[in-house]
Amino acid sequence: MKAFKQSDYHVSGHGPRNLHVLKDAIGKLHGELESDMYGKGKVIEDFQEKMAGVLGKEAAVFFPSGTMAQQVALRIWCDEKDLKTVAYHPLCHLEIHEEDGLKELHHIKPVLLADENRVITLDDVMNIDEEIACLLLELPQREIGGQLPDYTTLEEISAYCREKGIRLHLDGARLFEVLPFYKKSAQEVCGLFDSVYISVYKGIGGIAGAVLAGSKEFTEKSKVWKRRHGGDLISLYPYILSADYYFDEHIHKMVQYYEEAKELAEFYNQCFGITTLPKVPVSNMFHVHAEAPKEDMQDLLAKMYEETGIGLTGHVRENGEKGSRFEVSLGDLYSRVPKRRLKEAFAKLDERMKSR
Amino acid sequence: MKAFKQSDYHVSGHGPRNLHVLKDAIGKLHGELESDMYGKGKVIEDFQEKMAGVLGKEAAVFFPSGTMAQQVALRIWCDEKDLKTVAYHPLCHLEIHEEDGLKELHHIKPVLLADENRVITLDDVMNIDEEIACLLLELPQREIGGQLPDYTTLEEISAYCREKGIRLHLDGARLFEVLPFYKKSAQEVCGLFDSVYISVYKGIGGIAGAVLAGSKEFTEKSKVWKRRHGGDLISLYPYILSADYYFDEHIHKMVQYYEEAKELAEFYNQCFGITTLPKVPVSNMFHVHAEAPKEDMQDLLAKMYEETGIGLTGHVRENGEKGSRFEVSLGDLYSRVPKRRLKEAFAKLDERMKSR
Repeated sequence: MKAFKQSDYHVSGHGPRNLHVLKDAIGKLHGELESDMYGKGKVIEDFQEKMAGVLGKEAAVFFPSGTMAQQVALRIWCDEKDLKTVAYHPLCHLEIHEEDGLKELHHIKPVLLADENRVITLDDVMNIDEEIACLLLELPQREIGGQLPDYTTLEEISAYCREKGIRLHLDGARLFEVLPFYKKSAQEVCGLFDSVYISVYKGIGGIAGAVLAGSKEFTEKSKVWKRRHGGDLISLYPYILSADYYFDEHIHKMVQYYEEAKELAEFYNQCFGITTLPKVPVSNMFHVHAEAPKEDMQDLLAKMYEETGIGLTGHVRENGEKGSRFEVSLGDLYSRVPKRRLKEAFAKLDERMKSR
Repeated sequence: MKAFKQSDYHVSGHGPRNLHVLKDAIGKLHGELESDMYGKGKVIEDFQEKMAGVLGKEAAVFFPSGTMAQQVALRIWCDEKDLKTVAYHPLCHLEIHEEDGLKELHHIKPVLLADENRVITLDDVMNIDEEIACLLLELPQREIGGQLPDYTTLEEISAYCREKGIRLHLDGARLFEVLPFYKKSAQEVCGLFDSVYISVYKGIGGIAGAVLAGSKEFTEKSKVWKRRHGGDLISLYPYILSADYYFDEHIHKMVQYYEEAKELAEFYNQCFGITTLPKVPVSNMFHVHAEAPKEDMQDLLAKMYEETGIGLTGHVRENGEKGSRFEVSLGDLYSRVPKRRLKEAFAKLDERMKSR
């Protein structure tokens, strides 16, 4: 959307995904710094150790992608039990964004839990009517606006899985982003899970990559599968160095992003024909649902961007026949938007939604 | 090996794998340059198009690794024929360096052709006693010093495979490095194959990554498998930009590396108890075989490095009970070594080998 690109301020995210992101991350590092070599070497081992500490796990492995890390995690738990069945949410990343890699490469069958529109409950887990090797929980559930179970439910699911010998895996692509809501540390949340994946390019703001953490036995197995997948690259340092740099830049701002997400959601909810999901965000993200078809909404937003210089989103999607939606993730950009101009933009949006 | 690291000149390769490699590649590029996004965008599409042109194929896809690219290629050809059998050399990368990813993830069975110590002949291919979907040829055969079939054999194998409906895949990790010997263009060699993989960090000197090329139908399928493997990263630009930069830096020097390899092999062959494989290199690489056990050879080399300041290798491997070996790949460093000092180093090496 051209009008979005040309607006003075973007409200979402950390900023454009361009070469500056890499340049800033490595700019001050010494050129003599040695590459990692096929998963070994100071640059990768130091970061893995740091992440293992942050997540409170025995060991951690850097992966080029979460897609690879999570397939590998589920495969290890399935092999352990010699049972190729797992359970996860119907809108799990593995189910809808990975071209069925889990099924095509690992022949693992997923049992889909809960309705698409809500998060998994303890009842859902207790009512699975076949044996499973592993349950995957995604915190927050991204495709429904970043919703969360309450923390007690998490603890109950974790206790139930341990009792039943079901491995519990955390899709924590946005784990750090939910800690302010839970008022828990990463270690505390991860302590409920046998294995944990985190992304280094969502709230953390790196370029690409993922970390998989668990027991030493688990992570050593994951390195074998990482090689099988073609992920044991001779050099992963461009991703590792930027992950490390932006982790330190952003990790202490997760409370700020969460508070800003609640504020921004209120602005949206005050507009005619617009609601957010969830109503009150529980992380740095939420979805915006508008009572206007995608094309209409794009036109209406583009005109508002041109009038006010405030760009809310560049990607509007369909939502049923008469509606549209888009995702919002709070990052470094929000606090740079002058509040007066932001309020003007939402006043315009409200006005335009009313006069449709 | 400390003495190797501390020597004044390294004889092999392009230089240390450190952060300078990345800094040099992106240093002059504008920070506003936009990232690729999940395989789309100018930075990845332009490079893929350039590589398709260089290789004379309809289309090309950038992969994070050759391990991933080649498994994907073989899987596509197996699916096409609904037959999970391929053939390759016993020392093929897929057989010895990938933790059996081809078997564990794709359930593809390889038929091993030829002895370990020689390259595949037309006879080997004609005598395969079961049906195969695909034959993989590696040019040059890295694990035996970078040996090559003569070009006529290549043409005959290609013609035979076409006649029999066997897909022919090129492991061209070091393809550009053999073109001076064949006196052929990349397009000419690739024209004999249905699909081609090249590495961007061997002779080309990038950081990591691979290119898979073939028909548009083939490469489109490969993108689906790339996503399944977890290789469709949100951003691959650190590897792409460096691949592109070093391709332009090094592609015109392949003749030079080849000539230098022949010269350097002669120096080795003049030493007592040392021979190269092949005797006369056919690319920028060869293996050095020494009649001294690994530990002895390491000590002997270390002392020579200390005396002369010339570092030949940092990685000596065992070769049978009484021998040792190491790999040599010519790159930018060789021409910077003063010839007088290099000759002194080999005189010392000869002397020390004689006085063992």
